[in-house]
Amino acid sequence: MIRHIALFKWNDDVTPAHVAATATALSGLPEVIDAIVDYRHGADTGINQGNFDYAVTADFADEAGYLAYRDHPAHQAVISGFIKDHVAQRAAVQLRLEA
Amino acid sequence: MIRHIALFKWNDDVTPAHVAATATALSGLPEVIDAIVDYRHGADTGINQGNFDYAVTADFADEAGYLAYRDHPAHQAVISGFIKDHVAQRAAVQLRLEA
Repeated sequence: MIRHIALFKWNDDVTPAHVAATATALSGLPEVIDAIVDYRHGADTGINQGNFDYAVTADFADEAGYLAYRDHPAHQAVISGFIKDHVAQRAAVQLRLEA
Repeated sequence: MIRHIALFKWNDDVTPAHVAATATALSGLPEVIDAIVDYRHGADTGINQGNFDYAVTADFADEAGYLAYRDHPAHQAVISGFIKDHVAQRAAVQLRLEA
């Protein structure tokens, strides 16, 4: 399996309403992208200082599943509509999970 | 549940042998830290450009479980022995998972 992880640090002008709208948009993706096996996302809990602000983890059966998600129009629409112009920093890894 | 996510970008002088030793050290933690429910880690698969190099995701029943892991001497020893002086960048989020 492949686990995709993306962490975001929002721009200073991003509002709680924008974050909530982003979460709602992301929550719609598993309904339209069949390749998603497990999808978790949300704001940092605030336990630690210096963290990024928001995380997405998405599990797929294989690399092809991840690529189907990465390039899916609905995912690209969320990126361009809610994320792309609103993040100061992004950190990502695709990790191979042992069975 | 709480999912802890940490992504690392290694310093330029970090060798494959150091990464392998770090992976071995991390793999020992679930045996000694009971609070860990699920523990996944490994190098980036190289599917995308611009990614960080290494990821850890760790799931806990609750925030107390995560804090037990964060502050556990065995975890602190892996950080000080393998990670702290070897990473150029670190990005982390603690994410609340819905049941």
